Amino acid sequence: MWMETKAEAEEARRSHASFHKRVLKGLLRCSGDMEHLDQFMQDKPFVLQLAVWVLRGVTRVILANNPLSGALILAALYWSSPWQGLLGTLGALASTLTAVIIGQDSADVAGGLHGFNGMLVSLLMGVFSSAGNWYWWLLLPVCLGSATCVFLFSGISTLLHRWDLPAAVFPFNIVIVLYLFCTGPDNPYFPHHLATPPGMLEPNGTELIAVKVLRGIPLGVGQIFACGALGPALLILGAVVLYSPLLAVHALLGSAVGTLAGLSMAVRHESLYSGLSGFNGALGCMVVGGLFFTFSWRTHLFAIACAFLSAYGDIALSNMLGAVGLPACSWSATLTTTLMLLLTGSLATYRIPIGQVRAPERNLRSRSQWEAGNTEDRESTDV
Amino acid sequence: MWMETKAEAEEARRSHASFHKRVLKGLLRCSGDMEHLDQFMQDKPFVLQLAVWVLRGVTRVILANNPLSGALILAALYWSSPWQGLLGTLGALASTLTAVIIGQDSADVAGGLHGFNGMLVSLLMGVFSSAGNWYWWLLLPVCLGSATCVFLFSGISTLLHRWDLPAAVFPFNIVIVLYLFCTGPDNPYFPHHLATPPGMLEPNGTELIAVKVLRGIPLGVGQIFACGALGPALLILGAVVLYSPLLAVHALLGSAVGTLAGLSMAVRHESLYSGLSGFNGALGCMVVGGLFFTFSWRTHLFAIACAFLSAYGDIALSNMLGAVGLPACSWSATLTTTLMLLLTGSLATYRIPIGQVRAPERNLRSRSQWEAGNTEDRESTDV
Amino acid sequence: MWMETKAEAEEARRSHASFHKRVLKGLLRCSGDMEHLDQFMQDKPFVLQLAVWVLRGVTRVILANNPLSGALILAALYWSSPWQGLLGTLGALASTLTAVIIGQDSADVAGGLHGFNGMLVSLLMGVFSSAGNWYWWLLLPVCLGSATCVFLFSGISTLLHRWDLPAAVFPFNIVIVLYLFCTGPDNPYFPHHLATPPGMLEPNGTELIAVKVLRGIPLGVGQIFACGALGPALLILGAVVLYSPLLAVHALLGSAVGTLAGLSMAVRHESLYSGLSGFNGALGCMVVGGLFFTFSWRTHLFAIACAFLSAYGDIALSNMLGAVGLPACSWSATLTTTLMLLLTGSLATYRIPIGQVRAPERNLRSRSQWEAGNTEDRESTDV
Repeated sequence: MWMETKAEAEEARRSHASFHKRVLKGLLRCSGDMEHLDQFMQDKPFVLQLAVWVLRGVTRVILANNPLSGALILAALYWSSPWQGLLGTLGALASTLTAVIIGQDSADVAGGLHGFNGMLVSLLMGVFSSAGNWYWWLLLPVCLGSATCVFLFSGISTLLHRWDLPAAVFPFNIVIVLYLFCTGPDNPYFPHHLATPPGMLEPNGTELIAVKVLRGIPLGVGQIFACGALGPALLILGAVVLYSPLLAVHALLGSAVGTLAGLSMAVRHESLYSGLSGFNGALGCMVVGGLFFTFSWRTHLFAIACAFLSAYGDIALSNMLGAVGLPACSWSATLTTTLMLLLTGSLATYRIPIGQVRAPERNLRSRSQWEAGNTEDRESTDV
Repeated sequence: MWMETKAEAEEARRSHASFHKRVLKGLLRCSGDMEHLDQFMQDKPFVLQLAVWVLRGVTRVILANNPLSGALILAALYWSSPWQGLLGTLGALASTLTAVIIGQDSADVAGGLHGFNGMLVSLLMGVFSSAGNWYWWLLLPVCLGSATCVFLFSGISTLLHRWDLPAAVFPFNIVIVLYLFCTGPDNPYFPHHLATPPGMLEPNGTELIAVKVLRGIPLGVGQIFACGALGPALLILGAVVLYSPLLAVHALLGSAVGTLAGLSMAVRHESLYSGLSGFNGALGCMVVGGLFFTFSWRTHLFAIACAFLSAYGDIALSNMLGAVGLPACSWSATLTTTLMLLLTGSLATYRIPIGQVRAPERNLRSRSQWEAGNTEDRESTDV
Repeated sequence: MWMETKAEAEEARRSHASFHKRVLKGLLRCSGDMEHLDQFMQDKPFVLQLAVWVLRGVTRVILANNPLSGALILAALYWSSPWQGLLGTLGALASTLTAVIIGQDSADVAGGLHGFNGMLVSLLMGVFSSAGNWYWWLLLPVCLGSATCVFLFSGISTLLHRWDLPAAVFPFNIVIVLYLFCTGPDNPYFPHHLATPPGMLEPNGTELIAVKVLRGIPLGVGQIFACGALGPALLILGAVVLYSPLLAVHALLGSAVGTLAGLSMAVRHESLYSGLSGFNGALGCMVVGGLFFTFSWRTHLFAIACAFLSAYGDIALSNMLGAVGLPACSWSATLTTTLMLLLTGSLATYRIPIGQVRAPERNLRSRSQWEAGNTEDRESTDV
């Protein structure tokens, strides 16, 4: 009877829809901050917990907070260079363990806040070392430098707490500059390359290749992890999409803005091709566009302005520090975004207190719910 | 009858006196902060209001706040160099408009607080550009640099608010240093001169000419606006006299102190002749002598000490930044006056909260009234 | 009768014990902060009081606070070089007098808090001057520089007060860097030597001499006063023992740690031999090991970590500032200890509020009493 058929069809449709829904649910459960994982991990062995903390720390570098994204990023780093992957893992591990040992706040440790600075220090130590890959003595400064980041993170957080500002990557930027000054290019144990300032003049007759410049835009996202290969850079971008598509869009947009700023200041071609012109813009754009401020067309415009400021600031600081052979790292993006967080006026009304910052999509939803004033439909929208 | 004559004479005397009084009243209404103008402008068109804001911003550079003084100063700048005058006007305009657009506090905008940093950045960009006058592409960085000042002003104000400190010209000093590092001397689009450190040795056999050194003292007041011609410098000094004679006296005194400090450190002769040795001293002396502290013989002595500190600090910073070809701008005066505002002890008792700072003469009157504890005779003394 | 003999013997023993006790009491009264002296000095003439303030100021350099230690240290300085001794005395005197004149808090002045920065500035001015000893014109910048320290100390204290941080030797470090930049190596009035960065390469074939390296450890304690002779350095160490044996142990330990860090970075041999590698480590170790934190095995470990951070930081900063011929002074130790005071986590629980910091032994006793919750046995343990 058709009644039965109808009922069967209905059931089939339902089960089909529910399957789709379940897949979507599963995907959505893997995106964003994955806070439900924390409860699940509570009674698991320490080594497993530590792995999640480290993976969260890995994603914090690119302003995300999701263990699966972290695994993807680590895979990208090992793909690009196993030695760099090892250094990055070790750095995140060493600084997270140091934080546990010196008794830092356990919620901070579990959120991966003590991993990302150490990881960045280790990656940059590897990139600038001129002793070649698999120079095992380098693990000594890598561990010490990563551990130092925890001290700096804790101290700077206390300092900036008064203005509700995050310590961000200040520790990384300080430690790497000090390390490079400490060793110097001719150090017998830990020699390193000198950085080339972007303002250096090109030899005559070199033409700018448009395709290579465009290729530099996704590379700018990879350069946040000091990774200059296209494949791994795209995988890293994919890891950001998994956490938050909005954040990934801003990363690409910021990198493009940074490249534009580089073009307007006639920086070295190599700086554009490698993505080094773009990564500060990307970081600046991500922070303002949805992460620390609720997304809207206004914050979007501010995000573009912030990307320009970060990019120009990076050219200036790279020329300044490049005069003594040092890289400007992410000083510019860190200072510019700190400035943006301090801004009064119309941007300040979108500011999210740093304790409540989640993935941009989640921030947006929290905001609209809070504005609507009703929390009943939270269940239904929260999937 | 003599009775009538007497009455007539009396009347004539009265009308004469009242005429004098009215002239004096008129003059006094044009001096000081001209707060009555704000009420008058309330319902005028936006363009007129904007003009007043920009003119107030122009005077803020030299720590005054009076639209008529602003007009005089602009006239002096156009007299000295029409291109520099144009850049200055554009800078003040661009940053004031940016402040309106990004929704800064309207009282701050109306007080000209968002104009002076942008104006200074534009003037210095023009002075250091080696592309010559009327190089129209320069208007691009001028507008962007001026707009950036608003972001920095807002952020730094939030940061310093905790200690009731003003953001002062920190934004200008930061933006101009970054701009000069960003472009560099050989930039194909925006090349610039290198600054010469004052500590550079003189060629043998050059004698110091006393008249030129004395001429450098009023020039020091002009150098606050990067203006090195005597006529315009005196006009700028006149504009300060219109705002507050006490402030003008301290400007000259501070410039003289700065020249003295320069002599004691055997700086380059050109540095003394051009007034560059004096302008940091002048700024330091003005801030402490009556503006942010009630005038008294004690604050006067502190003002002289502050002028010495600013001047010596400027020599040190000019030598430091001059090593990489950069000017020290007004870093020294800004840092020294910030230090003075933080000082405890006997100077702190004269401190005026930054929200209540007016022209020195008015500060003095407010203080004495407040100390006398009677506000009835306010009408009579307030002319 | 034996009864009498017994009583006599008893009495003799008692008087003997009481003599020993009195000697011990006397010694103990001379060690620590000697707070009882302040009451005793209250109605003495100003010159005597000033002498005590200056002597306290002298010891503050090495984190102690005891007039007798101050006298010993001054003796050591005069022994090492009468000219340096004179400069140090004058510097401490000039800055203490300036503090009195500009109305600084009298308890701070009496505690010697306004003497030590001025003293250090004067000593370093003398060490770096290339005009030779007994160049009397140097007394001019010595007095002015010392006076400037008071301004900086007061301002920086206000700034850091929000986080309960001490101004420490920030004023000294700022003033000496500015002075050296201000004068430059070829200044006709105040010429100075250039500092050699520790990272400079050794000529080939020089062997490291172990005895000289070991000799550098106690020299590191002397280098806190810019004194490079062994005898005076040991006398200075003795002065620290008089104040607090625990502090002296940490000074030596920190200096050894600094030397170790220097070895690991292959710094110049001269830097190790002279004790310059050790003194930042010594300062870092002293601050954390018992002074600003209650002594325990945990703070002891943190003190060693802090010594390493200070020492590595000093190598980095010395290389950085050495590139322009400047010494890094105690920037590294000052910044590192400030960081340690900001640290959260397990170290923070041992933190002593800066207003209650006394000699380490006294801090320990206050803590245990406070923890025991009974203050009755204070008399008995307080000797």
